Amino acid sequence: MQKIINNPKDFVDEMLEGILAAYPDQLKCIKNDLRCIVRSDEKKPGKVGLSTGGGSGHLPLFLGYVGKGMLDCCAVGNIFASPSANQMLEITREINRGNGVLYIYGNYSGDIINFDMAAEMAKMEDIKVEQVIATDDVASAPKEKQNKRRGVAGLFYIYKIAGAYAEEVASLDEVKRVAEKVCTNVRTMGVGLSPCIIPEVGKPTFEMKEGEMEIGIGIHGEAGMGKDKLKTADEIVDQIMNSILNDLPYKSGDEVSVLINGLGATPREELFVVYRKVAKILKEKDIKVFHPYIGEFAASMEMAGTSITLLRLDKELKELLKKPARTPFFEQAELK
Amino acid sequence: MQKIINNPKDFVDEMLEGILAAYPDQLKCIKNDLRCIVRSDEKKPGKVGLSTGGGSGHLPLFLGYVGKGMLDCCAVGNIFASPSANQMLEITREINRGNGVLYIYGNYSGDIINFDMAAEMAKMEDIKVEQVIATDDVASAPKEKQNKRRGVAGLFYIYKIAGAYAEEVASLDEVKRVAEKVCTNVRTMGVGLSPCIIPEVGKPTFEMKEGEMEIGIGIHGEAGMGKDKLKTADEIVDQIMNSILNDLPYKSGDEVSVLINGLGATPREELFVVYRKVAKILKEKDIKVFHPYIGEFAASMEMAGTSITLLRLDKELKELLKKPARTPFFEQAELK
Repeated sequence: MQKIINNPKDFVDEMLEGILAAYPDQLKCIKNDLRCIVRSDEKKPGKVGLSTGGGSGHLPLFLGYVGKGMLDCCAVGNIFASPSANQMLEITREINRGNGVLYIYGNYSGDIINFDMAAEMAKMEDIKVEQVIATDDVASAPKEKQNKRRGVAGLFYIYKIAGAYAEEVASLDEVKRVAEKVCTNVRTMGVGLSPCIIPEVGKPTFEMKEGEMEIGIGIHGEAGMGKDKLKTADEIVDQIMNSILNDLPYKSGDEVSVLINGLGATPREELFVVYRKVAKILKEKDIKVFHPYIGEFAASMEMAGTSITLLRLDKELKELLKKPARTPFFEQAELK
Repeated sequence: MQKIINNPKDFVDEMLEGILAAYPDQLKCIKNDLRCIVRSDEKKPGKVGLSTGGGSGHLPLFLGYVGKGMLDCCAVGNIFASPSANQMLEITREINRGNGVLYIYGNYSGDIINFDMAAEMAKMEDIKVEQVIATDDVASAPKEKQNKRRGVAGLFYIYKIAGAYAEEVASLDEVKRVAEKVCTNVRTMGVGLSPCIIPEVGKPTFEMKEGEMEIGIGIHGEAGMGKDKLKTADEIVDQIMNSILNDLPYKSGDEVSVLINGLGATPREELFVVYRKVAKILKEKDIKVFHPYIGEFAASMEMAGTSITLLRLDKELKELLKKPARTPFFEQAELK
């Protein structure tokens, strides 16, 4: 495997050591556990704490969004594996300022089991905990089974918008309400063109031949709509956008933010070829784009591919999306 | 080739259409030529214009640094090919506010020929033009032939620092002086683990077997120190840092900014494993790190690999590095 690593067993911890060495003013670990990461800047009194967690290998997801205007902490798992309930509990204690903690994470069974357990333990310590689970991947289950869908790049919008609201010292119920509103209005679908390799496994997680692609792939390489011949960028975007637009559905007159996410090995140039077609389709449908985000936001290590996310905006979501944010992996001045 | 593209011939233009569709408030093309990109925000009276240009395939380099606090314009070539002198001249005219224009670009013969020609033509129109050429890649020629070295990720620091100074309406000579000071104090070396494919060519630019690497590789896949067995991250960093540190040389008591650049397919996680070791080495040498930049800053499409850049700071460079910047690809609030 063509990776710049030391012992595969140490990969996640060494990555975390690198992150903590790079951003000591923004992040720290607690309890001498590298997997328990919290903001190192000052705590705002009364602020609802926002917590996330998940497997490694997706940077900037999940840890990369801990910072001002977004999240307060993150429990970090091994590559593509959930962190433990105890780690989640430790960071919950650390960030609680008395007004409760909101867990925001993706719909994966390992994460759900552990976050549920952490929430139970936190409640026994009189910490109020609520949960919001992202299910934005339209390819992963039909609409009538929406609660079975995976959470993918749409998490970015939940973090951004709930994070902005929490900075305003909104209540736990209120922050949960806007986070759920984002979930209701966000949809994602991806395409994979190559597999990735988990360092400790040492071989690709699945096979993908030259000239093939998989539309609807998950960020761990989960199956989507099945393998197909690699099509042109415009054909791929047409197919993905068709699924996304019809799912909510997004309608003429809507305003959306668009996220074009690179899964790892896909150059930025290709993401703009994708955005070009997305913008054309939205214009034809009379759907207005407020602010596109184009880059790597939720990766699958070195997988080639992209995902497209649409978030339907209303006045409240738009105002919160505009707010500034600053994490080691994402920086945004206030938008106009 | 596993790429999300349409007709390879249209790749660069479609990428540019996507960029202009995404950021109309920040970028526009002039003369109906997609390859002539200038800032679309207001022009500051008397500001020295900063211009760059180069081949496509390196995003965020070059175009991605056009914006507030950095560059004013960019001439865009085909993949790995220089833009034309006429395109450079058009954007020079457009951004000139009477106090001259500084060309900042990498040391490649095609770019030099065309920028020289554009400068000559601009002078005939009474536009003052100066040039600063990046030669930061220590692997590409020995120190005594420094003017033969390639320009790579170090360009980021020249843009950032010269751009911050130009925003303060410094004179052309003054902006050129700090840009040259950055050149004098910046060094880079990279490692490649896989080739990349130019869409119109359709096959890899060079061969790299599983288990091989090339230290000193250029951002177009140019040869470095020759192929070697793929080593561990720590060994690779040791070798690169040894070459960089000895070249200037960087010394105990120095303060540096560090840039860990992903060449395309290398996950962010691996860049932090690299930074971990870089930080250790600098600490051992008693060299202080002011502000690390870790991500993709100068890519080679989907090449796997990384480069390490050190910039030795003095008070002036540090103050300018701290200034805010905002381009579609790089955003920084004022640093403390």
